[in-house]
Amino acid sequence: MLETIKTNKCFDGSTKTFEHESKVTKTKMKFSAFLPKEETSFETCIIWLSGLTCNEDNFITKAGAQQFLKDTKTMIVCPDTSPRGLDLPGEHDAFNFGSGAGFYLTATTEGYKDHYKMDQYITDELISILKDNFGIKKFSIMGHSMGGHGAITLGLKNPDLFVSVSAFSPVVNPSATPWGKEALTGYLGSNTEDWKAYDSTELLNSGLKRADTLLIDQGLNDEFLESELLTKNLETAAEKASQPIKVNYREGYDHSYFYISTFIKEHIDFHLRALT
Amino acid sequence: MLETIKTNKCFDGSTKTFEHESKVTKTKMKFSAFLPKEETSFETCIIWLSGLTCNEDNFITKAGAQQFLKDTKTMIVCPDTSPRGLDLPGEHDAFNFGSGAGFYLTATTEGYKDHYKMDQYITDELISILKDNFGIKKFSIMGHSMGGHGAITLGLKNPDLFVSVSAFSPVVNPSATPWGKEALTGYLGSNTEDWKAYDSTELLNSGLKRADTLLIDQGLNDEFLESELLTKNLETAAEKASQPIKVNYREGYDHSYFYISTFIKEHIDFHLRALT
Repeated sequence: MLETIKTNKCFDGSTKTFEHESKVTKTKMKFSAFLPKEETSFETCIIWLSGLTCNEDNFITKAGAQQFLKDTKTMIVCPDTSPRGLDLPGEHDAFNFGSGAGFYLTATTEGYKDHYKMDQYITDELISILKDNFGIKKFSIMGHSMGGHGAITLGLKNPDLFVSVSAFSPVVNPSATPWGKEALTGYLGSNTEDWKAYDSTELLNSGLKRADTLLIDQGLNDEFLESELLTKNLETAAEKASQPIKVNYREGYDHSYFYISTFIKEHIDFHLRALT
Repeated sequence: MLETIKTNKCFDGSTKTFEHESKVTKTKMKFSAFLPKEETSFETCIIWLSGLTCNEDNFITKAGAQQFLKDTKTMIVCPDTSPRGLDLPGEHDAFNFGSGAGFYLTATTEGYKDHYKMDQYITDELISILKDNFGIKKFSIMGHSMGGHGAITLGLKNPDLFVSVSAFSPVVNPSATPWGKEALTGYLGSNTEDWKAYDSTELLNSGLKRADTLLIDQGLNDEFLESELLTKNLETAAEKASQPIKVNYREGYDHSYFYISTFIKEHIDFHLRALT
């Protein structure tokens, strides 16, 4: 049962927040969405995955995306970034692990393995909900930072489910970064072999690839570029794997939604071309 | 001394937050701004006044205004809605009085009269800062809800200071509404004669008017329209006073920034035509 908990008319359509019981996470889950022209049935959908500390609100409130979808039959949907309402050991202690930091993976560690399955939540349950409730037939996926990591890993592992994949400021090699190592240890344990299934660079190195071009956007004044994002590692792996990739580096831009809002139209247009 | 405390590149310009010591409020005050093309000198400026509970962040984060100013020489500036860092009696107890709720007036009640002078802060101190630091020569003013009240009252009382005035969902007759009566009593005491200087409808009734057209935007699904906003009272007073006014009622739209983001371009274009 999908419950509408908030509706705001916006650009002739509606921005809504939905809530439902999740069989995958065994919690309630929320997502926000923009429904052009206040229609109830659509053909295509872009899924946006948010970054660390975010929930279903950040993108739909700050990115200014609605205006670029208002004349289309394409919804945009923004799920929350983790299960909520639990109180697992350490779940609320760090910004890069636990609540608000699901990392779009299936956890195997005690406590977390029962709820933290954000990859399955997106690719199975959310997709089904969107097909059943809105008639969606085709999906694209994009995201920011941890959500960029989510978009690329899910896109590489599910090439037929998503017709196009893009990311802003993605975490592309979490096995090699401070945020990533902490989170992956917390969710998967210390065997680094287990981390590779959730690392875009390692997935490309392992032979996974897509026929279409990955679109990546990266600010050159991003405070996390050198320590946490490591865009060049993805570029190198993509080149070795002959994975088509387009990386747009943006002089002076940082990691914020002010940056995302500046270039979101390019990404939406990219996905609309693939979807329609 | 104007201190820059935050800068984010955005639409080829920069979104910034500034802080300064205010002689008027005797506190530090903050404002956000968008500076097109990262210039340091401009010709014209739109001042945005926010509503209850807001600070300098809400508009610049949520309205999507930057894209419509990026090719201009016009700044937009968004001051905070009250002094901060004080702890006056009752200052933090209600959403419609005290911190986050300055109502753009000069208080006369004990404690508040020493700090709560948001009208003087805007029309004297902020204007001077903007002239001195950015070379601004012409100003327009607009706002939302309590900030719409601020824009219209300051615009009516300072016809030469602001070349154009507009408002979204303005509080136009606070002497007659629950939020307004509480706030005006708290700031000015219970003599309702003293309230008239801070009530757009009463100012028009008293003979103040502008030669140019007031532009008003009002959602018809606004949950506060009938109880707190009373748009029709302003229309009636404007008609009696021969004040040119254009009210755009918007079917289905509410009081939120999703609504504001939908129509902000029309207001920015209105002010740009007056400013340039």
